[in-house]
This record gives sequence, structure tokens and C-alpha cells, in this order.
Amino acid sequence: MRIVSVDPIYLKMPSITTAADGTQDTLLVRIRTDEGIEGWGECDASPLVSLSVYCCPMSHGNIINIRESLIGERIDGPEDVRRLRARVLRQGLDIQQIHHAYSGADIAAWDVVGKKLARPVYQLIGGAKQYPKLPYASVLFGNSPQETIQVARGLKERGFGAMKFGWGPLGSKDAAFDEALVRSAREGIGNEAELMIDAGVCWGNDVEKVLERAKTFAKYRVTWLEEPLHPDAIGRYGELARRRPAVPIAAGENCGTARTAEDYLENGGLSFIQIDAGRIGGITPARITCEQAQKRGVTYVNHTFKSRLSLAAALHVFADAEKFKYLEYPAAGSRLAFDLVKGLERDAKGMVSLPEKPGLGVEVNIDVVREFMVPVRVELSGLTVFESERL
Amino acid sequence: MRIVSVDPIYLKMPSITTAADGTQDTLLVRIRTDEGIEGWGECDASPLVSLSVYCCPMSHGNIINIRESLIGERIDGPEDVRRLRARVLRQGLDIQQIHHAYSGADIAAWDVVGKKLARPVYQLIGGAKQYPKLPYASVLFGNSPQETIQVARGLKERGFGAMKFGWGPLGSKDAAFDEALVRSAREGIGNEAELMIDAGVCWGNDVEKVLERAKTFAKYRVTWLEEPLHPDAIGRYGELARRRPAVPIAAGENCGTARTAEDYLENGGLSFIQIDAGRIGGITPARITCEQAQKRGVTYVNHTFKSRLSLAAALHVFADAEKFKYLEYPAAGSRLAFDLVKGLERDAKGMVSLPEKPGLGVEVNIDVVREFMVPVRVELSGLTVFESERL
Repeated sequence: MRIVSVDPIYLKMPSITTAADGTQDTLLVRIRTDEGIEGWGECDASPLVSLSVYCCPMSHGNIINIRESLIGERIDGPEDVRRLRARVLRQGLDIQQIHHAYSGADIAAWDVVGKKLARPVYQLIGGAKQYPKLPYASVLFGNSPQETIQVARGLKERGFGAMKFGWGPLGSKDAAFDEALVRSAREGIGNEAELMIDAGVCWGNDVEKVLERAKTFAKYRVTWLEEPLHPDAIGRYGELARRRPAVPIAAGENCGTARTAEDYLENGGLSFIQIDAGRIGGITPARITCEQAQKRGVTYVNHTFKSRLSLAAALHVFADAEKFKYLEYPAAGSRLAFDLVKGLERDAKGMVSLPEKPGLGVEVNIDVVREFMVPVRVELSGLTVFESERL
Repeated sequence: MRIVSVDPIYLKMPSITTAADGTQDTLLVRIRTDEGIEGWGECDASPLVSLSVYCCPMSHGNIINIRESLIGERIDGPEDVRRLRARVLRQGLDIQQIHHAYSGADIAAWDVVGKKLARPVYQLIGGAKQYPKLPYASVLFGNSPQETIQVARGLKERGFGAMKFGWGPLGSKDAAFDEALVRSAREGIGNEAELMIDAGVCWGNDVEKVLERAKTFAKYRVTWLEEPLHPDAIGRYGELARRRPAVPIAAGENCGTARTAEDYLENGGLSFIQIDAGRIGGITPARITCEQAQKRGVTYVNHTFKSRLSLAAALHVFADAEKFKYLEYPAAGSRLAFDLVKGLERDAKGMVSLPEKPGLGVEVNIDVVREFMVPVRVELSGLTVFESERL
């Protein structure tokens, strides 16, 4: 079959704040074929910037937009998905945002092929069987230690076996305040659950400070300390690893290319690498990183802070990897993200598995798409080069 | 003084082909201050995608557009330019295209500060004096060996001491054809001039083929072989270096972040690193790479395939580095690129220097901007979020 349409669809909440909450808007990508099969994907990126990668005029042979590279192409099996990715990246070689933007299309292409072949995506990318994951509830710190205890207690009541607190005021005051936040999180969740801390790049390039904080946080039994440094500071991550921090270090959510992930693996000395399939360019490159991590003995973890469409895509990447047990599981966020796609609930043991269904195995609620959709029109020299489809 | 406006301006030729000719369109950035000082910069990137980074709505605290980060900010000296860059990148942490897009604004900001302080930019970034550069004429291979000889003879008549041929049909047929292209280039330019070859990523990940071709090309005295591999294949570049290719290897034009350049320097084993200030995020990060290259004994070269505004920006970065003698000097391209900015002609010895004038030292021809400008309008939910200024 052939691809007949590729639609980037911009959704947003009515009002948006500066909070590090990635569920306030999103970019979906829908691919349709001439056999009537429809696949969906989601990007974790600026919707407008990524959308423009679907419609930007050609600048030369290395700047050709995604739609032009995809429409009319054959798509029948996994090799086509890989070929299409190579084609899009080659023709978009000089578009920096190409990976962020293509993520949704790569995910949608896997969904299409899974539906066509009546198999779940994790099998199409080489998985023989899937293993249930331990979801860790991923939330932002409260604005104070007191608020953080409340958030933590709420999560505990919901029965999570692992919880991650991040961003918010961490790093904005002194060491005592940072410790109070982490202590509050541990107090609130109790002694049994696993606790992860996400520093949200708050210490920039300061390896000394990270070593100090890691020592303090270790008292509260922290599974990992995430993104303590700037994402570009991969050399500093390597230095940090050589100095043996008191808690394991996780990073990588910002990887926007497969090479950046490989750079982290080769030079960053991480214990956990966190890949967002909605940023790195989709399931295809995320799977490459997952396999590289396996070879190097680094634990692969998804990064997900969007709807359950993204969660499903993220989980297909490493569903078959028994050793990689943690699943980032957004436990707070907008109505947009929570209503858009249902499913992937925890089972009686508190674990999460993929439905054994074709493609991604989840359904987009088109009424929610309509409710939150932002119609986009881009006009160059008075001519419309992009206009959102009516849904 | 304070920034009062930041205008991304999209220019294009009436018709655009798939040729690897970067002068067919462009994105300029103009910054104005409340003291009436105006600075200009140019990006080497998709104009529409980069423009959208100037106007995209906020998604959360890590996706805030460039205009919002800059307008109203103080700009008085070099420290402000660095501070503004840090601010823009922090607030745009999750916008992959931020570096490509910000390049023009960083360059414009240096132009503003140079004009305010009445000093050339190369001095403001630490240069005591400048050294003339050897311009190498940068052109595309002809479609055949015969055409290539013609192109080469034409350049020789123009008196260039160094010439680079690239892209076009190289790598599209067999080894004999590739050799014929390189032999023709050498024949056409004569024995005295330096010859560089740009493979335009044509051998992907194939290290063996690059080793073979390097051996063949060495017969024609090649100063460097550029981008024989895919830009993401930094590990392969390292492998290539360990296997001692018969000609020196150059790469790096695709570096879209300072870390990617550092990754090339640390792991790519290059002899020459080629940085485009219009892609890596402007003069500020290009200068960081230039200093890192100096420490590592790698030769820094500009990558430039836009107007002389870009050439001036590129030259300020390493004007003071006596050892780094080569200057990529576009010698073919569109009327847009050639008429937009004049200057930087070769002197009697065939060398190129910067004018000792404030800022970048070159002037944008506003009539040419008007002639080639593409007015852009972006509408979200019926409301205009961007509309090009009338000039």
C-alpha cells in the first residue's frame, strides 16, 4: 500500500504556564494509506516548530519537508518504516528539528504496519515476548517540602511501587532546602517504594555540587538522580561518573539524535539512559539506543511526559527487554493528555503491559482531538502552504 | 540599551532546485535597540522552520520562543551577548531547532554590540589582531568530468590559490568515475593551487570505501577529503582516523550544537573541523569550538555557503588565529546571495581580511532584501501569531 496523507495536528490546553509540565500541548501525526489504514504518533516538542518541518518549502536537496518525502511512498512492512526514516533524514539533513518532528511520523508508520500485519509493534521490531514493567509515577515537586509531602502521600494512596519527583523548586535555594524536598518525598511515599529524583538540569556544569547533593540524597535511598547537569555537558557527566557519585545517575531525555544517545553511552558514564521516542525520531532510533544500552550494561528507561499514545510508543521500544524494568508513567498532567488515549492501566500487581493488539494497541479519541485542536494556517507571499485538515 | 525588536526575514530566489546550493534562500535576523542601533545576522537553515522558533507559542518553561526571550533585554557589551544566548537556550531547551534559529540572532547581537562600542567583533571576542586568510573557492562538481574541468578552469582564471569541489555526482557511480571527477578538478585548476574535495556524505557509514577513495584521491594532492561519512557517524570517523587514511579528513559543517562539535573533536579524529556559525548557534559557540580546536591541534575552518554577511560572521570567529589559514569562500551561487552584502573581496595577494570597522563591518542592501523577501503569516485558531514586518 501507499501513503496518501500525513497530517500534523496541533492540540493545546486553553491556558499554558511555565511549569515543566509537558502535557499542556502536543503535536499528533496521523498517517493514512490507500488501503484505509490509519496510524497515529505523538511528538514531544514544540508543536508549531515541528509542524513547520512538515510543510517548509524546499531550500535545496538537503532541506525537503517530511510530507514531500513521505506522500506516495510504499509502506508494507518493517523494512519500509526503516527506509522511509532514512529517506526523510537524508532529504532533511540540514533541518535540525527533523528528529523531533519526525518522531510522530515514525511512530505512526509503525502503527500502520502493525495494523496491516495484525501484530503488535514490539514484535515487529524483534521482540519475542513482552515483560510487564514497574511503572514509576512521574510528578513535579510541590512548591515546598510541605506540598511535596502531600503530593507524595497522594501517589502512595494510588498504590505506586516507584515514584519520581522532579523540577519545581529543586536547586533554586540552598542544600538544606533541596534535602528537605527529597526527605519530604521519601516521607510521603513511605519506606517501601522506590524513589527517583529528577534535578531538571538545575546544576548546569557544577560537578562538585552534584557530588555533594548525591551524598545527601543517598540517605533517602534514591534509585537514581536524573539530569543533574546540562544535557550538553556530556563530558561533565563522564567526569561525574569517574568520581563515583553516591547515587546512580540517569540522563538522556533531551537526546534529539541517535548519535547524541550514543555519545551519552560512550562518554557519559550513565547508569540509566532515558530516551523519549517522541524526540529522538521515533521508535526506530529509540530501539537502536535500547540495543546499544543492552550491550553496554546501561539500563534503558523511557522518558514520557505526554499522553498514553506516547506511553504506548515508548513501551513498545523495550517491552521485550526483561532487564529494563522501569517505566516512566505520567501520573499528573492535563485533561488533554489523560483523555486523548486510554489504556495501559496498572494490573493487579501494579505492573503495566501492552495490549496484545495490532500496531500500538491504543486508540486516539477523535472527539478529544477536535476539542483541543488548534487550526494552523501558514501563508508565504500570500499563498497558503499549510492549512490544518478539518477533523 | 535595550532590545526593542527581533525580526526574522525570509528571502528566496523565484525558483529553487534540489542542487546542493545553499544560496537559493536564506533567513536574516535583524535586531534593533532603543538607541537606534541595528544589527544583522544570517542563518544557514530552513527559513520557515527557523522563523517559527521566533514565534512559536510557549509549551511550558522549556519551550519559549526567541523573541519572547530577547525583547526588552539589556544589550551593552559582550557579556550581554553571552548572557542572552544562555537565556534563549535555557528557555528553549526542548526546541531542537533553537541553535539553527538562534544563529542569526547571536550574530546580529554581536553586530549591535560592535557598533555600540565602535569595535570589530573579532576584537570583542578576544582577538588582538587579524591575519589574512587564504580563500578557497567553494563550488559544486560539474555533472561530468568534462563539465568539472570547465568549472575548474573558470576558477583558475579568477586567480584562486585554493579550490574545493563537492557534491554533484560524486559517489553516484563507480570508483573510476569518482577518480575522473577529482582528476578533472586537478587538471582544470593546474598544479599550483590547493585542491579540496567535499564528498557530501556520499559514503554513509562505509569506512572501507572512504579508505580506498582517499588512496586514489591522494594521487591528485588533496588538502582534505570532506564529509565522506554521514554526520552522525562520529564513531566511524574515529575508526577512519585510526586506520590512517591517505588524505586528511575534514567534517563538522552539520554541527548544530557546541556539544556535537566537541564530540567530533574528542571522538572523530579529524584533521580539520568545519563550523558554520549560521548553524551552531552563532559566533559565540563557534568561537568556543575554535578555542577547543586550537587546544587539540585540529585546524578550524569556517563552513559558509550563504551571503557575505555569513562570510563576515564566519571570519570574525577565527580572524585572530594565525594558524587557521583557510577560509571557505563561496564562488558561485544565486544573485540573492551575491547582491545582498558586498565586500570581503580578495586583496592583491589573493587573501581576504575583515574591514576594520565596527560590528561585522559589512552592510546589508535593504533593496535586495525587499526584492527577495517572502512575507510570512502564521495563524493559529484564526489569530495571527506572526506577520513579517514591512521593510
